[in-house]
Amino acid sequence: MATITDLSPLAPAGGFPNLPPISGVRFATCAVGVKYEGRTDVMLAEVAPGASVAGVFTKSSTRAAPVLDCQDKLGTISDAGKGFAILVNSGNANAFTGRAGTESVSAITGAVAGVLDIPQSHVYTSSTGVIGEPLPHDRITGALNQLKSELDSASLEPAARAIMTTDTFPKGSTQTVQIGGKPVTISGFAKGSGMIAPDMATMLVYIFTDAKLTQPELQSMVSRLNESSFNAITVDSDTSTSDSLLAVATGASGIDVSSSSEFEAALNAVMLDLAHQVVRDGEGASKFVEITVTGAATDTDAKTVAMACANSPLVKTAIAGEDANWGRIVMAVGKSGARADRDLLSISFGDILVADNGWRAPDYSEEAASAYMKNEEIKITVDLGLGNRQFTAWTCDLTHGYISINADYRS
Amino acid sequence: MATITDLSPLAPAGGFPNLPPISGVRFATCAVGVKYEGRTDVMLAEVAPGASVAGVFTKSSTRAAPVLDCQDKLGTISDAGKGFAILVNSGNANAFTGRAGTESVSAITGAVAGVLDIPQSHVYTSSTGVIGEPLPHDRITGALNQLKSELDSASLEPAARAIMTTDTFPKGSTQTVQIGGKPVTISGFAKGSGMIAPDMATMLVYIFTDAKLTQPELQSMVSRLNESSFNAITVDSDTSTSDSLLAVATGASGIDVSSSSEFEAALNAVMLDLAHQVVRDGEGASKFVEITVTGAATDTDAKTVAMACANSPLVKTAIAGEDANWGRIVMAVGKSGARADRDLLSISFGDILVADNGWRAPDYSEEAASAYMKNEEIKITVDLGLGNRQFTAWTCDLTHGYISINADYRS
Repeated sequence: MATITDLSPLAPAGGFPNLPPISGVRFATCAVGVKYEGRTDVMLAEVAPGASVAGVFTKSSTRAAPVLDCQDKLGTISDAGKGFAILVNSGNANAFTGRAGTESVSAITGAVAGVLDIPQSHVYTSSTGVIGEPLPHDRITGALNQLKSELDSASLEPAARAIMTTDTFPKGSTQTVQIGGKPVTISGFAKGSGMIAPDMATMLVYIFTDAKLTQPELQSMVSRLNESSFNAITVDSDTSTSDSLLAVATGASGIDVSSSSEFEAALNAVMLDLAHQVVRDGEGASKFVEITVTGAATDTDAKTVAMACANSPLVKTAIAGEDANWGRIVMAVGKSGARADRDLLSISFGDILVADNGWRAPDYSEEAASAYMKNEEIKITVDLGLGNRQFTAWTCDLTHGYISINADYRS
Repeated sequence: MATITDLSPLAPAGGFPNLPPISGVRFATCAVGVKYEGRTDVMLAEVAPGASVAGVFTKSSTRAAPVLDCQDKLGTISDAGKGFAILVNSGNANAFTGRAGTESVSAITGAVAGVLDIPQSHVYTSSTGVIGEPLPHDRITGALNQLKSELDSASLEPAARAIMTTDTFPKGSTQTVQIGGKPVTISGFAKGSGMIAPDMATMLVYIFTDAKLTQPELQSMVSRLNESSFNAITVDSDTSTSDSLLAVATGASGIDVSSSSEFEAALNAVMLDLAHQVVRDGEGASKFVEITVTGAATDTDAKTVAMACANSPLVKTAIAGEDANWGRIVMAVGKSGARADRDLLSISFGDILVADNGWRAPDYSEEAASAYMKNEEIKITVDLGLGNRQFTAWTCDLTHGYISINADYRS
């Protein structure tokens, strides 16, 4: 039996935000019993004609069938007069299911295309849940007429809930910006980071805006912002076979944002917020940790060092233990493989300089550092002293809760 | 307060082996109170003239001062008529101690050279324990005359005990082979893998043989064998700033083993045995895990996949939970970055084929797989189906014990 996890102590205090509808997108959910009982497990999003759809996906070489299908289709416009659809199921990841997996994707996308009268190449799917078991796709295709009849532009929160697996809270975020005196809105939701075996740690993200952007413009913007948001977070260094982000620009506002820095900033805010919420729901997490590396010789070095710290079990257990153990940061910098000079290294916990120029800081106070580590949000800065490149990563601590969720059961 | 760890359940049943003395090497230990009370914490090994000394070290970019000093000196022969010495202290790693660290190494090596009448460049040191604190090297240099007076060729077990930090058992191994009808002996000992903060997870290994080899021959053999022994084990993916292995060939047997495959096999057996013992003392370990990757396109791919599995928190917690969760192996293969084809992948737990050609094996039995996972030693085989290269890695499971040791204290 899996351990049931209570609401993460790091969950946003305000609960799920009020997500404004996005003109041109409607949602419906239902409970078809893919695996779970007594909860919704299928989400359908219908997108009006004329929209642009972009995506980023896991780089895993063992990607699930729905991911491969999305990657094949992205950027394809079979008929400009027709809309798009996204269908997501929870309870079964349709991963490592061989040819049957591909057939399930084909069956679902074909049926959605038929019911909504759009080309099959305009239908994207994601699946999250148990792996290695055939997806009972008939249960999903059998519910499509009901789903179609219930499509509603206001149903973003039910959509966010239907895609959850072992998340302890649904994750949503929104921004509205004025561009040329007119409002443009972005609303998105995500699931991820609960991993109760035999489920996978899939992260799924769906972002919708009424802004106007071509598909290549949207793809370029999402890919760029992804590097400093979803590709800058980690819970345990493990990567799902199904991680997917889809972004949809319906154009319904009529406002071209292709050269708007305000829009890009707003999209970045939504993506960062959702990424942070995934970390805040990290398995067993009791602290939210921001690690900033400055003074690196290259961008790659900055990210390599930040992720080495963020993934180090010794760094993460020290934070769980509220121990100002900067020696473990030195260790992580050293093992990262990035260019670093021990005698130029400086490390701060919050505003407290703990190590400077390769040794314990002259006025280091163990009491001050230990007091800082009791905070629920911890900021660690590592300056390499070699250049001017920097990177920020986010992670959580490594606690008994993680072990309980992932080891304390028998299948 | 640090958690006190009981003897690892994976410790060798027979206890510390009887290590034969190696002609040309004498050992002494004493308790100088570097940090610990009531136990030995300094080990001196004196090596007769004419020996060859080789070494391999951590690749960390934040290496400790003793490591940098050893690397500078290795292969240097200032006076062929003089011997060598190795001095190791536990309790303080002399790591991240700036210029003071270098000065401590210089003070110790200078004093050892004076007492034993050998060149300073023939003296190697290692330090293991707390980091970031100056090493009180006067306590060590003040004990050198006593150490010299107690040098004894039979004292290998006391030497193995003096270098321990948080190890739950001392680690020793020996092999004797007949070469041309005459015996050649190898005896070695190691410490490593206990990491109770603020200590580091330093792995130190010392191997002695009476075989005859030039320094380049010994270095080449040790570097080669290291790749499939100490560089093939992992406890938590973290790397110490001080990991060091020194190998000494005294030549006292008079037997040239430079082209002896029997000798190389014996040296490999000692190195593998010591490496496995380090894993068996892994923090919180309850299972010893061997992961073999076959069918890889390249050697690098084989090692990358094996280490991705061996370091994955999800794989290691599944093993702790005795869960035959082969989906987590698929995940680890996928995230490794090595060339892999989902639909060619096969996975076995012991002799049980659990996944084959990209899907659950046709006659997979959950009961049989779950029964296998209850063993204390677990063998996992991953066949990539792409070529004929392979690699074997060793690790332990990830348990509550690891979290307790590394997080359940306040500094």
